[in-house]
Order: sequence, then C-alpha cells, then structure tokens
Amino acid sequence: MTRRPTAEGRRPANQGPKAAARNRTALIAAAREIFAEHGLSAPLSAIARRAGVGQGVLYRHFPDRNAVAAAVLEENVRQIEQAAAAEDATLSVVLGVVTWHMTESAAFVSLVHAETANGRVGTHAYARDLSERVERALRGLLPDGHRLGAANDLMLAVAMVSGAVTGPTREEQEHRALAAWRLLGVEVGPVRPHGG
Amino acid sequence: MTRRPTAEGRRPANQGPKAAARNRTALIAAAREIFAEHGLSAPLSAIARRAGVGQGVLYRHFPDRNAVAAAVLEENVRQIEQAAAAEDATLSVVLGVVTWHMTESAAFVSLVHAETANGRVGTHAYARDLSERVERALRGLLPDGHRLGAANDLMLAVAMVSGAVTGPTREEQEHRALAAWRLLGVEVGPVRPHGG
Repeated sequence: MTRRPTAEGRRPANQGPKAAARNRTALIAAAREIFAEHGLSAPLSAIARRAGVGQGVLYRHFPDRNAVAAAVLEENVRQIEQAAAAEDATLSVVLGVVTWHMTESAAFVSLVHAETANGRVGTHAYARDLSERVERALRGLLPDGHRLGAANDLMLAVAMVSGAVTGPTREEQEHRALAAWRLLGVEVGPVRPHGG
Repeated sequence: MTRRPTAEGRRPANQGPKAAARNRTALIAAAREIFAEHGLSAPLSAIARRAGVGQGVLYRHFPDRNAVAAAVLEENVRQIEQAAAAEDATLSVVLGVVTWHMTESAAFVSLVHAETANGRVGTHAYARDLSERVERALRGLLPDGHRLGAANDLMLAVAMVSGAVTGPTREEQEHRALAAWRLLGVEVGPVRPHGG
C-alpha cells in the first residue's frame, strides 16, 4: 500500500466501485462501534471519522441516521447468515455470533423492541423480516430433540436473551447474555463476530 | 351517588384532597390503558378524557408526559409490592401480577430498556431503583431450592420475559410472556392485576 494517512489521520478519499464498497463496509463497522459506545444519537461525524472518510462520503452512502442504523442491522443479519452457512457451523457457534451482535448492538435491539411495542408498524414489519432471516439461519442447525425445537421457542429464546442484555458496560452485557442462555439450558459458543 | 356525568360524558370536577387522590388514581389507570393502546406518544388529552377529568386537572398532577409515565411505573411497582405483602402471597401468584404489568406496560418496559441501553444514566438509576423494589418483593417469596434462587437469576428471568413481551395484540404479548416463563421452567399464576 502506497497510500498514506492525510494530516487529519484520514485515508485519502477512495474512488471507484471497489473503493465505494470498502467505504460502505468501513462506515457500517464504525457505526456499530460508535452507536454501541455512545447510543443511537451519537453524531454521524464521529462515524465518518472512525471510518476514516469524510462526511460527504457518509451521506453519499446513507441519506440519514435511520439508513445508517438499518444498514448495521442488515449487516448483523448477513453475518449471522454467513456464520450459519459455514461448513462446520453448529447451533452453539452461531448462537455465539448472534449473542455478539446482540451485545454489540444492544441499543438497536432495544430500539427496535421499543418501536415494535409502541406499535410503529413499519418498524415492526422490518424487524419481523430480519427476525425471520435469523430464524431460518438458526433453524437449519437445530439438532433433533433440541430444547428449543418446538414451534416458536427458538426466536422466543433469542428475544428473551436480548431482553437480558442490559448494563453499563459491554462486559456486563455479555455476562448477562451468557447467564440468560444458561438459565434457558442452552449451550452457546464463544461470543464473537463471524470470522472474528 | 347524586353526581351525574356532564354533557361531554365527564364527571364534574372533583375538589378537596380526597377528590385529588381519586383523580390521580383515575389518571394513572387511564394513562396505563391509553399508553398500552396507543404507545407512549398518545395525546395526554386522551388520558384526561379516559379518566373523566379536564386537562387542567391532569396538568395539576403531572407537569409533563414523563411525569405521567413515571407515575404509571411507580404504581405498577407499588401494586407488585402489595401483592407480595398479601398474607396468602406465593411466588407464582405475584409473578402473575408482574407479568400482567409487563404486558400492560410493554411499551414502557421497552422504553426504559432502550434508554438504559442507550446509556441515559438518569433513567438507568430510576429503572434500577424500581427493579430493586420488585426484586425485594419477589425474593421474600422464593421457596428454598427454587430454580431462580441463585444471586441475580430472579431479575434476570424477569428481564428475559420482558424481552419476550412483543406482538401486535395484548393477547399475543401475554401468550409470549407465558411461553417465556415455561421455557424458563418457572410456574406462573393467572396473569392479572393485584386484586383483579
């Protein structure tokens, strides 16, 4: 790599479709971190800075805050699907990935939940779509006779664990998530991102 | 009773400290219903109307929307404490009352959860205080060797069930709450308010 950071610590603006895809990926990863650290009302400029791009680049990809948040959720689900599609995937490993996203995106999960409970139907349909994709990814890995094998128990358990993911620090959130899975009698692998 | 509804279907304005207490109680009950039906952004005028008082009376008791919401949560916890203090109280009966408040106030529970996850510390301290009161009320009823007897498992389970309380209708919310308790292997009595 011959490119060097600019004086502001940013990489020079990327151009072309490959660079655009790279910027988008960096923005989504940065948004997940910034939202997790500072909540959903964190300034978008902080996201652009963390991703190493200018704010103009951010707005080229995402017209507003909701679009950024939706992209993070979408990417969470995509990573869960990828983890479930891996050749050596097991339910416990993928539940570890699900749990990582739950704790990393605790603020989101709650927001979607709050908006659903408040009856905002648009959000509800969107949340249901994402939830159905997670369910499909997990259901294919359910061993026969698993404790969560009955009709809706799988996603009910996921919702229950997401309800437990509170606390001031990431560590406490993860600790509570694992305690919740234990209470449900469900084995969960290491809490980490897919490929992480 | 000699008082009659006015033309607008309201009872005439109550006066004096007893009437003030009666109005406050009616406003809180109305707020719980209206928020459950229409979400937390429902017009306060609808709450006053449901309680059968004028908006001026509402504002005399509650300076703003947050004050109304806080009063509902406070009253929820008070009713749980009363249920737990009853002579024939059992854990399962009181968990039924807790579950009733969870489903009746699903929008709130999510909001408190979302604000906590978003790191709004004021709300966090307030939510923790309410949560500790519920824990004290329930802990006194835990039989020896109960499944939720270990350190934080009791309130973890309550948080998990509250995470499951979603869905477009009250019936579905209650159904999911009961399914969640079942998954946890915890017996829960009828879902109803204290004294209801």
